[in-house]
Amino acid sequence: MVTMSARTILCVGLNPALDITYRLARLVHGEAQRVGDVRERAGGKATNVARVAGQLGAPARLVAPLGGPAGEAFLADAHDDVDLRVVRVERATRRTVTIVEADGTTTALNEAGDVCPPTDLALLAHAVDEELPRAGVLVLSGSLPPGCPEQAYANLIVAARDRGVATIVDCEGPALLAALDAGASVVKPNRHEVLSTVGADGAEGIRRLRDRAPECVVVASDGPAGIIVSGPAGTLRGRPGRALVGNPTGAGDALVAAIAIGLMRGLATPEWLRLGLGASGAAVLDPVAGHVDPATVEQLAASAVIEPAG
Amino acid sequence: MVTMSARTILCVGLNPALDITYRLARLVHGEAQRVGDVRERAGGKATNVARVAGQLGAPARLVAPLGGPAGEAFLADAHDDVDLRVVRVERATRRTVTIVEADGTTTALNEAGDVCPPTDLALLAHAVDEELPRAGVLVLSGSLPPGCPEQAYANLIVAARDRGVATIVDCEGPALLAALDAGASVVKPNRHEVLSTVGADGAEGIRRLRDRAPECVVVASDGPAGIIVSGPAGTLRGRPGRALVGNPTGAGDALVAAIAIGLMRGLATPEWLRLGLGASGAAVLDPVAGHVDPATVEQLAASAVIEPAG
Repeated sequence: MVTMSARTILCVGLNPALDITYRLARLVHGEAQRVGDVRERAGGKATNVARVAGQLGAPARLVAPLGGPAGEAFLADAHDDVDLRVVRVERATRRTVTIVEADGTTTALNEAGDVCPPTDLALLAHAVDEELPRAGVLVLSGSLPPGCPEQAYANLIVAARDRGVATIVDCEGPALLAALDAGASVVKPNRHEVLSTVGADGAEGIRRLRDRAPECVVVASDGPAGIIVSGPAGTLRGRPGRALVGNPTGAGDALVAAIAIGLMRGLATPEWLRLGLGASGAAVLDPVAGHVDPATVEQLAASAVIEPAG
Repeated sequence: MVTMSARTILCVGLNPALDITYRLARLVHGEAQRVGDVRERAGGKATNVARVAGQLGAPARLVAPLGGPAGEAFLADAHDDVDLRVVRVERATRRTVTIVEADGTTTALNEAGDVCPPTDLALLAHAVDEELPRAGVLVLSGSLPPGCPEQAYANLIVAARDRGVATIVDCEGPALLAALDAGASVVKPNRHEVLSTVGADGAEGIRRLRDRAPECVVVASDGPAGIIVSGPAGTLRGRPGRALVGNPTGAGDALVAAIAIGLMRGLATPEWLRLGLGASGAAVLDPVAGHVDPATVEQLAASAVIEPAG
């Protein structure tokens, strides 16, 4: 739909996961059950961002620290549909186990993962540094592993700024505050993450984040209520044209992919906000996290409502 | 306690698993939860038999068909405490996920595993054939993978008989019937498995199994109610000297290890039945499946009650 840049959206997460999904008629608490329907997928927020960006026609590359048997399984899956740079690390890649019942009830067990040794971070930072010259934008997405310094994303933001590469950060708490201090271009917390990070949500929460980093654009998502974009140029509110029922997992990652495409292509804010509403809406309608139907994205983007706010 | 034979207990299962245990305060149905306490262990019934036999001082060797990332994780764990012959196969090793809550409530999700290709079975049969000359007894334990012919254990029993090696089989349904027809020396179903295989439990169920194979010794376990041994020489009943509260997973495997030691050392039936009551009781008292405390085994064996029956 737009001409493609030779540069890529560089997606980085420090805590990728192998996502395992078990489908069952019913989960019976306290009993042993046989599971015949098992699916495995390379997961994690940065992985989803890279996938959705690719589905929307933008070149994206994922830098993934992988280790241990679950890392091998991640690689075997991602290999097919993601442009991947594997950083082989000592720490074993964690798993998530999601149990989906016939009535749609979903129970998830997300491994926190092992403690991250400093050498793993050094290897990752080196790989990101090598990739930055070809990056149009750097996306840093997802939780930090146990034992990881809160500055881990902030250090990568500084490296990106040194090369003039814009950054989009999706995390919460001290890591989000450190990202603001380091000069992130855009941060995308959801309402819960705004609250957990600065102790307030809504307009007050966004104000606190912007007070800390006036140059940063804050994109605050709030599920069906829509998205607020607040930056030096003002504040916009976007909401879907119709109510969407489905699987919200990965909707925020689809929004981040749209923001990244917007930044890389120099789209105006209302334009990428519209694309973001289309992408996140299409992600809700898709049963698989990290997957959107481009026609649905276009349709939902066209019907989205964008208006000035605050 | 007894002199050791130079021969080994050869343990074979067709469907080994990587056992993953998640410990949580409480499993909340329908929600996403973070899991900090994750343990992984090489699992499956044949693996447990080999481990317990080793803990009771008997040389045991496990032949394990392993494949894929979970197979690598199985190998990394078993490598330390089991004499292992790995048969690298195409089929990926399955997983089990067990969720243990603070109050002891246990919910298990056991992957059935992929369909087993015929070439995997051929590789395994070849490995067993190579190991049989050094085997004192062959243990065949655990479910057959999807797509596996019901004759898979029966074929290995025939190979063992050709070399004069006794066989102990722990499975159910058509695979158990095929094992009886092929001339298994001992079969060890529990009460539920007797019922699911011949449509009756108790004395009538055992009679139906013995009618099919009069030379075979049937060892029918029934949890706290004890164990019935019925063979050409008559019928014995054994029960624990005291009530045991704990984790029954792996108790049947500990019993199989005791029977294997009995057969290999030429112990009289009451003697190995006593050892089996000690081993299975110690397995109940141990939180980890495939682990027993030898002193506890000895103590519980001494207090077990053995009496003629039927």
